[in-house]
Amino acid sequence: MTYCIGLYTENGLVMLADTRTNAGVDNISTFRKLKVWETPGERVISLMSAGNLAVSQTVIGLLDEGLLFTEEDRSVMGADAPEDPEIAQTLLTVPTMFQAALLVGRAVRAVYHTDGKALESQDSPFNVSMILGGQIAGRRMRMFNIYAAGNFIEASEDTPFFQIGEHKYGKPILDRAMRYDIELNDAVKLSLLSMDSTLRSNLTVGMPLDLMVYQKDHLKVGLQRRINSGDEYYDHLQVAWSDSLRSAYAKLPEPGWMNPDLFNGK
Amino acid sequence: MTYCIGLYTENGLVMLADTRTNAGVDNISTFRKLKVWETPGERVISLMSAGNLAVSQTVIGLLDEGLLFTEEDRSVMGADAPEDPEIAQTLLTVPTMFQAALLVGRAVRAVYHTDGKALESQDSPFNVSMILGGQIAGRRMRMFNIYAAGNFIEASEDTPFFQIGEHKYGKPILDRAMRYDIELNDAVKLSLLSMDSTLRSNLTVGMPLDLMVYQKDHLKVGLQRRINSGDEYYDHLQVAWSDSLRSAYAKLPEPGWMNPDLFNGK
Repeated sequence: MTYCIGLYTENGLVMLADTRTNAGVDNISTFRKLKVWETPGERVISLMSAGNLAVSQTVIGLLDEGLLFTEEDRSVMGADAPEDPEIAQTLLTVPTMFQAALLVGRAVRAVYHTDGKALESQDSPFNVSMILGGQIAGRRMRMFNIYAAGNFIEASEDTPFFQIGEHKYGKPILDRAMRYDIELNDAVKLSLLSMDSTLRSNLTVGMPLDLMVYQKDHLKVGLQRRINSGDEYYDHLQVAWSDSLRSAYAKLPEPGWMNPDLFNGK
Repeated sequence: MTYCIGLYTENGLVMLADTRTNAGVDNISTFRKLKVWETPGERVISLMSAGNLAVSQTVIGLLDEGLLFTEEDRSVMGADAPEDPEIAQTLLTVPTMFQAALLVGRAVRAVYHTDGKALESQDSPFNVSMILGGQIAGRRMRMFNIYAAGNFIEASEDTPFFQIGEHKYGKPILDRAMRYDIELNDAVKLSLLSMDSTLRSNLTVGMPLDLMVYQKDHLKVGLQRRINSGDEYYDHLQVAWSDSLRSAYAKLPEPGWMNPDLFNGK
């Protein structure tokens, strides 16, 4: 399993991924699930992946080697379509984030085309999902959630975050506290809290974590960090957050319909 | 779907269930999933159920009509076994909570015996799980989680809560704040917060809620209440909790490895 969070704010992007992969509970490994392509001053693009690791690694391999867009793809690109249809595109060459999302989707479909049938014949579903975020010079910052069919949706002010993998444990804190207009430092804390809820509850999501922070319009990576088990700040955050939650709920008012004497140990 | 929480504390039990059932997203209904059997001064037993509604309603029907224990069951009961094996037992007649759990398990197996094959032939899994809690005079208060196979586990100081149904969204708050030694009024708040996390994130869990609070050794129901949509306290709790969470995470320290100028909108 995996848990990856992408937060889309007016101030930038926060992307956080765990690194655990497992085939059963007795075969676990560490793999990087967050990748960054950067041309400082021109573009920053980051991709996180969940699902079948062989599928997502092959997708990234294709993206690095370059893919041709199909005629169908080119027809939706309009004026932005690359001039020469015979030149393979990578995440470092596509001119827009929309084309970056299309390119990742095409890579996913290419892997389905080559591996999908074999996987299904082994009762192993073709299972992959990705979060792609970034900005290219002269264009706006965007974030996409890309599905196993190669199609995608885009984050917006209304829905300023995406989750892939084991998303349920970490969702309540995002539902309650995530807003499009939060500061980036708050977004980093929020992503770590959402991750921590998941780490505590699901053994197949595990440390270390990979964090990437991008500040809007800066066109270079703001922060990229591997947070290892034992990281002083992360350990402190876990304890401080549990304490805060306990004191916050203790301060909530009592239900008016409850007899306080009956239930206060009296 | 369903979400039910049973909290087992040194001061008593809190049991909370939603009431939504659905067959698809366009066929939803309201059914009570929390039932209470009470003989004031002698026993309080409460049962919550998740899974296939036809299965759980039939289990409750059998429990109300009475069941015979098998010879196998009687062999594990020792001195507590009912004297006459031909007298059908209900939750109002069994002498111990352990026998109450056995009885519910036997009712589940009886329904599997009659309906299991037909359900499976329609690709509908035999899917039911239950939380049973209560106390009988002269015995200790106990809480059990009963599975579709009719077997069960018991809550303890180490694991003082059970969840059935859609349990993931509501688990992080319990993992962090639930302790065996909390006051009952705090346990009620905690159960409502865990439920609220789930209600927000899963449309197939819905209001109204059924709440039962039992204070240890009182042998009568402490509080039984249906919390309807629009309940003043519950509405207030939702808002107050979201506010608390937001201010709690804003107060958490910044990561030492983050450049505060870079990410503070400067």
